[in-house]
Amino acid sequence: MANPLGKFIVLEGGEGAGKSTQLPLLGQALSLAKLMARTEREPGGTVLGEVIRPILKGNQYPEINEYHALCGFNFIRMAYIFEIVKPTLASGAWLISDRFAFSTIVYQGYAGGVPPELVKQLTDGVVGDSWPDLTLILDLPPQVGLGRREADQGDGTRYEDKGLAFHTKVRDGYLHLLEAYPTTTAKIDAAQPQTLVHRQIIAEINQRFGLNLQPVI
Amino acid sequence: MANPLGKFIVLEGGEGAGKSTQLPLLGQALSLAKLMARTEREPGGTVLGEVIRPILKGNQYPEINEYHALCGFNFIRMAYIFEIVKPTLASGAWLISDRFAFSTIVYQGYAGGVPPELVKQLTDGVVGDSWPDLTLILDLPPQVGLGRREADQGDGTRYEDKGLAFHTKVRDGYLHLLEAYPTTTAKIDAAQPQTLVHRQIIAEINQRFGLNLQPVI
Repeated sequence: MANPLGKFIVLEGGEGAGKSTQLPLLGQALSLAKLMARTEREPGGTVLGEVIRPILKGNQYPEINEYHALCGFNFIRMAYIFEIVKPTLASGAWLISDRFAFSTIVYQGYAGGVPPELVKQLTDGVVGDSWPDLTLILDLPPQVGLGRREADQGDGTRYEDKGLAFHTKVRDGYLHLLEAYPTTTAKIDAAQPQTLVHRQIIAEINQRFGLNLQPVI
Repeated sequence: MANPLGKFIVLEGGEGAGKSTQLPLLGQALSLAKLMARTEREPGGTVLGEVIRPILKGNQYPEINEYHALCGFNFIRMAYIFEIVKPTLASGAWLISDRFAFSTIVYQGYAGGVPPELVKQLTDGVVGDSWPDLTLILDLPPQVGLGRREADQGDGTRYEDKGLAFHTKVRDGYLHLLEAYPTTTAKIDAAQPQTLVHRQIIAEINQRFGLNLQPVI
């Protein structure tokens, strides 16, 4: 997608990578530069997302498998695209999203056991012309990320509870995507202190889009 | 799936093939033979089905595409399997279902333009070990089926309104599936009067499962 005004930026990464800390900081940096910016966490507040997300993250259906999850996440993505992504970009604003389609390719595909090519092909049909302009992948060793989550006393969803082997596959999946899509992804070293993570993100955005944003921390 | 007691039977076919007429007749024939039988129309009365089906059949999202529909139908299929298919068969009853996974392979795949192999692979992962024991495909020329629907003043959903070229692809898709899965499908000539359609269905069930059901009309 080539957006004439605002850009569609996605933050991706495993558990504890710091996406929810970085999201508002990037939004503030854009606002300080007088750019309209909206921050959202997929699936946003859509009605479909509110109905389906708890089913995907919880234990209502103990036999739920990753093919079901693949369908569910991609179906609520449809509502996110139609209700949030497209209207935000059409208004000229930037959209900064905590997770998007790469999460499904990684969690259900590379880590979840559904053939990644199947997940990519399906997800590409669902996303259509709404692929992000840039996906920032917050990379860190899964031991570090899971350690941070434990310290936070995370909510223990189906994915957080899956253990180190799963989260190592998550990281490897993101590294595959960095290699496969070099022009629309950037690797951010999320093991750094949050201030430096923020500054690396700002530097990437400035370089990719010819801007001069200032870091806010 | 090899069900020890009740069997899982699905009625499939294009518009106007007579599935909703034949469904209760087959249920009655089973009941007359003292077999427990439940008839359902996918997605049944599940909460997920009630939320998602109107979105798939209606015009809430004008840009909805067949990849979105593929995800939506397969996600409500999950609830149908967990809440209706598995409990019914576990109770020892037969389940006679108006539509199931073949509808998705045909409507989104062969007729809808999503590569059929992608639809089959995804749908197989969603269905798991809950494939029907027998799928009865009510076959008739699409001109005849659409003519019947017009006479009924059907509700004009997104699929019924798609015209003859689409419904010809639907029929061809079902014929592909008959060829691909000969041991778990049977072709029923739905251009016959309903009495004869019912009798052909009863004859197929008797032959496949070694029963002696009597027709009810």
